[in-house]
Amino acid sequence: MTAHTVSKGLDAFFNPNAIAVIGASDNPDRIGGRPLHFCRQAGFAGALYPINPTRDTVQGLPAFASLDDVPGPVDLAILAVPAEQIADTLRACGHKGVRGAVIFSAGFAELGAEGQAAQDELLAIARAHDMRLLGPNCLGFFAARSGASGTFSSGLDGGIPARGKVGLITQSGAYGTHLLSMAKARRLGVAAWVSTGNEADVTVPDCLAHMVEDPDVSAIGIYMEGVKRADTLLAAIERARILRKPVLIMKVGASDVGAQAMHSHTASLAGSDASFQAAVEQAGALRVDTTEEMFDILYAASVAPMPAGDRLGILTVSGGAGVLMADAADRHGLSVPPMPKDAVQRMLVRNPFASPRNPVDFTAQAINDFGLVTDFLDEMMQHGDYDAYVGFFTSWAGAARLGPMLFEALTGALAGFDRPFALVGLLGDEMAARYDAAGIPSFADPSRAVAVLAALARLRAGFDRPAVAGALPHLDDTGLPATPLSEAAAKARLAQAGIPCLPEEVAQDAEEAAALAERMGLPVALKILSPDIAHKTDIGGVALGLASAQAVQDAAAAMLRDIPAKAPHARVEGLLVTPMAGEGVELILGSQRDPVMGPMVMVGIGGILAEVAPDVVLARAPVTPDQALDMLARLRAAALLDGVRGRPAVDRAAVADAIARLSVLAAANADTIDSIEINPLLATPDGILALDALIVPRGRDAEEDP
Amino acid sequence: MTAHTVSKGLDAFFNPNAIAVIGASDNPDRIGGRPLHFCRQAGFAGALYPINPTRDTVQGLPAFASLDDVPGPVDLAILAVPAEQIADTLRACGHKGVRGAVIFSAGFAELGAEGQAAQDELLAIARAHDMRLLGPNCLGFFAARSGASGTFSSGLDGGIPARGKVGLITQSGAYGTHLLSMAKARRLGVAAWVSTGNEADVTVPDCLAHMVEDPDVSAIGIYMEGVKRADTLLAAIERARILRKPVLIMKVGASDVGAQAMHSHTASLAGSDASFQAAVEQAGALRVDTTEEMFDILYAASVAPMPAGDRLGILTVSGGAGVLMADAADRHGLSVPPMPKDAVQRMLVRNPFASPRNPVDFTAQAINDFGLVTDFLDEMMQHGDYDAYVGFFTSWAGAARLGPMLFEALTGALAGFDRPFALVGLLGDEMAARYDAAGIPSFADPSRAVAVLAALARLRAGFDRPAVAGALPHLDDTGLPATPLSEAAAKARLAQAGIPCLPEEVAQDAEEAAALAERMGLPVALKILSPDIAHKTDIGGVALGLASAQAVQDAAAAMLRDIPAKAPHARVEGLLVTPMAGEGVELILGSQRDPVMGPMVMVGIGGILAEVAPDVVLARAPVTPDQALDMLARLRAAALLDGVRGRPAVDRAAVADAIARLSVLAAANADTIDSIEINPLLATPDGILALDALIVPRGRDAEEDP
Repeated sequence: MTAHTVSKGLDAFFNPNAIAVIGASDNPDRIGGRPLHFCRQAGFAGALYPINPTRDTVQGLPAFASLDDVPGPVDLAILAVPAEQIADTLRACGHKGVRGAVIFSAGFAELGAEGQAAQDELLAIARAHDMRLLGPNCLGFFAARSGASGTFSSGLDGGIPARGKVGLITQSGAYGTHLLSMAKARRLGVAAWVSTGNEADVTVPDCLAHMVEDPDVSAIGIYMEGVKRADTLLAAIERARILRKPVLIMKVGASDVGAQAMHSHTASLAGSDASFQAAVEQAGALRVDTTEEMFDILYAASVAPMPAGDRLGILTVSGGAGVLMADAADRHGLSVPPMPKDAVQRMLVRNPFASPRNPVDFTAQAINDFGLVTDFLDEMMQHGDYDAYVGFFTSWAGAARLGPMLFEALTGALAGFDRPFALVGLLGDEMAARYDAAGIPSFADPSRAVAVLAALARLRAGFDRPAVAGALPHLDDTGLPATPLSEAAAKARLAQAGIPCLPEEVAQDAEEAAALAERMGLPVALKILSPDIAHKTDIGGVALGLASAQAVQDAAAAMLRDIPAKAPHARVEGLLVTPMAGEGVELILGSQRDPVMGPMVMVGIGGILAEVAPDVVLARAPVTPDQALDMLARLRAAALLDGVRGRPAVDRAAVADAIARLSVLAAANADTIDSIEINPLLATPDGILALDALIVPRGRDAEEDP
Repeated sequence: MTAHTVSKGLDAFFNPNAIAVIGASDNPDRIGGRPLHFCRQAGFAGALYPINPTRDTVQGLPAFASLDDVPGPVDLAILAVPAEQIADTLRACGHKGVRGAVIFSAGFAELGAEGQAAQDELLAIARAHDMRLLGPNCLGFFAARSGASGTFSSGLDGGIPARGKVGLITQSGAYGTHLLSMAKARRLGVAAWVSTGNEADVTVPDCLAHMVEDPDVSAIGIYMEGVKRADTLLAAIERARILRKPVLIMKVGASDVGAQAMHSHTASLAGSDASFQAAVEQAGALRVDTTEEMFDILYAASVAPMPAGDRLGILTVSGGAGVLMADAADRHGLSVPPMPKDAVQRMLVRNPFASPRNPVDFTAQAINDFGLVTDFLDEMMQHGDYDAYVGFFTSWAGAARLGPMLFEALTGALAGFDRPFALVGLLGDEMAARYDAAGIPSFADPSRAVAVLAALARLRAGFDRPAVAGALPHLDDTGLPATPLSEAAAKARLAQAGIPCLPEEVAQDAEEAAALAERMGLPVALKILSPDIAHKTDIGGVALGLASAQAVQDAAAAMLRDIPAKAPHARVEGLLVTPMAGEGVELILGSQRDPVMGPMVMVGIGGILAEVAPDVVLARAPVTPDQALDMLARLRAAALLDGVRGRPAVDRAAVADAIARLSVLAAANADTIDSIEINPLLATPDGILALDALIVPRGRDAEEDP
């Protein structure tokens, strides 16, 4: 191994020339002994300096009484000493010119204010010496290429993981160890693993930014609890997207009870889980719920090429498994288009018992005529033009006679093929590793194989997306007052930003109502104005679609005459006249400043039903009109915008423009405005109309927020 | 092994005294050799008769030239002969008094009409001799207790599965083999496995009905494509429910493309997937999407007790894993209530660094103080009163020092405990098997452990449900004409069945409108009646909430005066007068005869939004009002019924009564009525009102249906 050049950033950790272990133990099972032991096991070729004033040698290496006694420079220090010695030790590291320090000890910010102060001191020492800190309260890290293993995680017990292309980043040490152990159990090749603990300095986003640039790392899995430095996180995800490296994120605390448990367990700010999800997926990462899902996708991404689209070709020896995989494709958003008719004909000539449409069932005839497998696969590869393939071969894949035949056939047919092929079969670890090496990931459960291909397709769609979709709308004036606004003022401000609002005026008698109606433009709606009448419709207090001045006057006169009799105790303050907004779809459009992720814009289906079964899409503000169109397409009830029951489609472009304009306002005023809400926003075939609006400045209770 | 008594049903297969293999091969790898080989491997202790006219012995057993040459009685015949010899061979079986026959050969109904005729002939022969048929085109069966192994499935290659309590039923032979192989790879103990193929006689429901009564079988997994004998299936599921045996069903063909592939692959009728799901879950089974999900649940159900409710206690060595499991619990519908305060205090005294609320994080302190594990578990068992427990112990479970300590601690604490405890950890097969034997299922992925406990809780809730919830409403007359009904006639018929309908009448002029309104009761709605005006509201053609005769007359006069000017080409046929239905929630209530599952009743949220994002619940008709209340509770937007934005709750009991009444009508007329639809059904605080109704008789095109 050649000597490494230590550059800035996190190279002091992942790529050091010399490591000192302070508090080094001769016992390779102890916390102070493990890093030394693991570094040597992992083949670290740089200098290793055990620091231990009581011994001449540690694990066979010459020991030093103190860091100052070390003859050469030290890039990385592993601090395996008690919490109360950390600050002094860190100062010594600074004086020695150490560039990175790993602090295992707990007893800092996780204990409350006093611990936080002690942790702040560590950070100040590190900053003063231009030194990066990993931890405290972390399990350290492991880097496959350099062999640097600044960790005591039991995840390295029983052996270093197979060298591979996957990077793993975890806030939790214990869960990080679980991840590392699962990765080893699943033959997932690991390039680097890091646990960030309390994140006094180095955070999950910092590690992601580092790993993204590492040519050894081709896919990254993250386990996180709270988010520090959302901007760094999103920028690193965006960078990974441009470099076409999948980023998978497990973030816990999605549920109320989970979030509650998390905030008792970490010191993280409580942002909204939905905002987090929207922002990281917008940047190009994929949020996953379970560890197995994350590993499945990392595994496939580190073995196979990425699919260019959502068209799945299904090859199978079992009709039933074919149907099962077609169902799974549908569930996960992949399409299963049929083979071209001439190819179907050729395959039927080749095997009259086959069902070669897609799923392509070559049947168990292949036991006696093995060429069927490659012939059918060739047809699919050459004429099906699928973006991804899955092949169900059940126990054949591991069988004594058929297994090697299948391996030859598949690796031969797929050599150099640039689209992913997932094998479903029952096979031993050795055969599976051979398939891995040939670029063919394997799964026992067909549903899981299809789910993974779908996830790869989603990631690849993110890679292919241009960095910026369209331009943000230009607003002449994005300023909003930081004080409460009346509804009328809010509407006026939105109208000024290019979001039209519905006017409404109050008439005191029937004649004035008719005059207002003619001025506004007919038809109009008329409503009795009374703070005491909740259900106006029930007592004739609402008239809709009044199409002439006479009709307005008649209806107004009838209301003013009849309603006092129906509701004798109600104060009647007049009649509200508004133009008929026309038929349309009621939406909700709004922004909300998330304490963690910043300004978010939201569009949703309006109306009372949406209150109990919300249908909303979030994005980080600002968004372009193109991005806003994409938000609309992701509404569960998006088809409502296309016209239902013979209604015409609404003007999606106008809605998208309003979303973009509101998002620009929200982003420009993120420091002073908490939320903007237009509810309802009426979308019609001819445009949009804000029927009601609210702008809420940030309150004093939000001030504790940095 | 003692001799078995052959009883009726499927005992001839699973529990025979004597088996003949017709077409027996000396080569244990061939189709005719495998059943003999497997029977002996599985320890079948009855008589085994190879039938082969060309050999004296087969696999060391004396061979017979024909079935007639066999000296004693034969219960079960395995027919490993070509399709064209099956009929004659079956006749010979009949003459010999064989009770059950397994037919491996393909070449019957799956090939079309001619094959169907050949298959019908087989069934006729079997019926004539009171003999049951398994297949044709199947892979046979395997029974652990008797060792009877009438199969050539490669799923038995490399060894018979571990003896256990799980029954597996599959239509697909190839996927059935995959299931058997996966079961073996996952150390799932198998009691019986059967593949039904073309189901000329024995169907999946028949096998289920048999296995449910087998004391060796405690949980059953089914893989199915089409459904034959829905009534048998539902009755067997109901029987399993009463015997408290979990039934898990994977039914493929849920997606359009999957269904299309399936119908090209099987000869099954196309019922609705939603009807299937509703009916089997109503009967007490659980539908699962993936094989791993099915095996996870079967595994846990065959190892652990069932949870009595949905309260999950989470014990963990990692705060992060605790949060992750709390999230998973929320996702899968389990609750995570906190520990009592005094217990929390005791645990904090025991370990001040713990977070002992729930999740209960005992922390890695337990490495040095192992009693923390049992102390905290004891607190949770004695004071938490959880229905199910999950414990996260990561690599501890398989570690050299901690592994055995943990095993002692957990098995000691949990011995005889009647609630499930799922262990999450990384452990070898041997340790996992020891935990299994101790009633503690183990998983590597915490999310998966929680998902399984949630599935067990759902199954157990089904077990606890009384067989009949309440009584069906009594209808004096359930007859419906089998001919088309006008809307008015349909409403009248529904009103007679106890479902009130909204009247509407037509007025020709303003005076008549006012008179009708007074007769109906004020307030009323008034609408212009014209086949040519689609958007009545836009031109003033709708007036709502008219509260006096004068207001009706004014509004009617205005419409008749103004609308001809607005819409000069529209034919105006009069004015529609209806009572104001009042505020309420629009529902859809209907029935639909499913070609496979029979009459289904459906309730859903109404309105235009529901058209694009449907929110409906199905059940097999008839249902009692209690069952109907349960349907309402399962609507995604069920909260709408409780009143939103200050509205009062609607009368759920009235809605449920209407659902039950309609379901009784649908069930009573299943032979002649295709569908009944009430859309909308207005639910108000005071009751319900059908605003529109349609009754559709079965058309001639439905007649091909048996």
